[in-house]
Amino acid sequence: MNHMHERIAASFRSQGLMVTLGANLISIADGEVQIGLPFSALLTQQHGYMHAGVITSVVDSACGYAALTKAPPNAEVVTAEFKINFLRPAIGERFLAVGRVQNSGKLLTVCTGEVQALSGAASKVVAIMQATIVNVYR
Amino acid sequence: MNHMHERIAASFRSQGLMVTLGANLISIADGEVQIGLPFSALLTQQHGYMHAGVITSVVDSACGYAALTKAPPNAEVVTAEFKINFLRPAIGERFLAVGRVQNSGKLLTVCTGEVQALSGAASKVVAIMQATIVNVYR
Amino acid sequence: MNHMHERIAASFRSQGLMVTLGANLISIADGEVQIGLPFSALLTQQHGYMHAGVITSVVDSACGYAALTKAPPNAEVVTAEFKINFLRPAIGERFLAVGRVQNSGKLLTVCTGEVQALSGAASKVVAIMQATIVNVYR
Amino acid sequence: MNHMHERIAASFRSQGLMVTLGANLISIADGEVQIGLPFSALLTQQHGYMHAGVITSVVDSACGYAALTKAPPNAEVVTAEFKINFLRPAIGERFLAVGRVQNSGKLLTVCTGEVQALSGAASKVVAIMQATIVNVYR
Repeated sequence: MNHMHERIAASFRSQGLMVTLGANLISIADGEVQIGLPFSALLTQQHGYMHAGVITSVVDSACGYAALTKAPPNAEVVTAEFKINFLRPAIGERFLAVGRVQNSGKLLTVCTGEVQALSGAASKVVAIMQATIVNVYR
Repeated sequence: MNHMHERIAASFRSQGLMVTLGANLISIADGEVQIGLPFSALLTQQHGYMHAGVITSVVDSACGYAALTKAPPNAEVVTAEFKINFLRPAIGERFLAVGRVQNSGKLLTVCTGEVQALSGAASKVVAIMQATIVNVYR
Repeated sequence: MNHMHERIAASFRSQGLMVTLGANLISIADGEVQIGLPFSALLTQQHGYMHAGVITSVVDSACGYAALTKAPPNAEVVTAEFKINFLRPAIGERFLAVGRVQNSGKLLTVCTGEVQALSGAASKVVAIMQATIVNVYR
Repeated sequence: MNHMHERIAASFRSQGLMVTLGANLISIADGEVQIGLPFSALLTQQHGYMHAGVITSVVDSACGYAALTKAPPNAEVVTAEFKINFLRPAIGERFLAVGRVQNSGKLLTVCTGEVQALSGAASKVVAIMQATIVNVYR
């Protein structure tokens, strides 16, 4: 997992968007990746909550990197598509996106993801995702 | 449509994320809204293309505002969920997101959206979306 | 739960399709419903496996009834939309569809579902669903 | 297209479910396939309308065959996933499912689909789909 950890950390740092959002890699395990995101007024929708697109961006990345932990060494991953439900307004001090591999094949990996809004010790799931990621062989 | 135009423009300006992304409202018609987005290295994924989450954010907003053009005057709109397919890498000088209402009921509006990547005179669809938006009555 | 059990059982029997498919209600709990389905050559796709549409039909019903267990007494439920991933061919002697409520609001309920293929003592998940169900008040 | 027509017609006939549903192939064009379905009380949900799963089955098949018209000769197609919105109750004398290719690559084809309910000369779109189909090379 060490090499994988470095590979994902380097890829994460090279994503301009993750830097712009202020997102950070929390944990990398076999088949599960967690990404954290503090609230920022620069990332809001019209009511001052975190924008659905921001919530989506971090959980999409968490799913993609979770898929990468299951991909062959000579493969990169690309998101083919995803679907996301927003369960409640994204109100919180910070957010935790979790991506989990549900099934990985030679070509396609299917992940589920969720985003929790955290305020103090309280935690609420604000969104759930189902995503299809493709292995691209170099 | 004049009042609607002002309402959407004001809402758009109050979205911190749209400002941060550098997105701009291109057009508002009954049931169709277009949003433009120039390429920025601050919004990329690890290969230097526009991040799927950014592409998603602008077309989600286009769909939401398209839904708003069909909503009753006393309703606001919230995205319940969407699904998006990424057809090719988001490579372009700028991007155009188009949201279109397919059906609007009292409670739910269903939209389709697409994002075109533009380079010079060339245009390619890089993503298509299908979204469900809820009318929230105040 | 007794009244709920009768209400769901009566609704299930009145679904022509569930009878035609040979599906049967396995269990009803608060927020979770299970539906069984034996393999049938009348329900196959071109390779002789169960058709994706059949797999989808039973897990859609399981999600809808799971949502009903959380709905107010004066509400019926209608599926607004769902997304389903097919993880492997639907090969099995029988199938078990499980629908689970992830969040229920006044208007919308979000469920996840899965379908397991069963052969002897072996079980494999062949599909996962994420669905949005609407409460319709009479 | 002649060989393609025969290939799709033979595949369609070998789908037990399409026979059970009473569905019939209406047209096959490059990138677009249409499937018809008469109303049947054997295929209903609890209010007597066509079941969402049946509507889904026919438009899933239409999308799959549309994808096949764009696939290489040595490839078969399998549905990886789809998302479908139900716009209104599926009430009609008969139904027309249309699947259209939006983009086809070496591995993945993205289709959109719709189902129209037909009664006399009237036609209403009751569902729209967005689907990802995989080319499987033998």
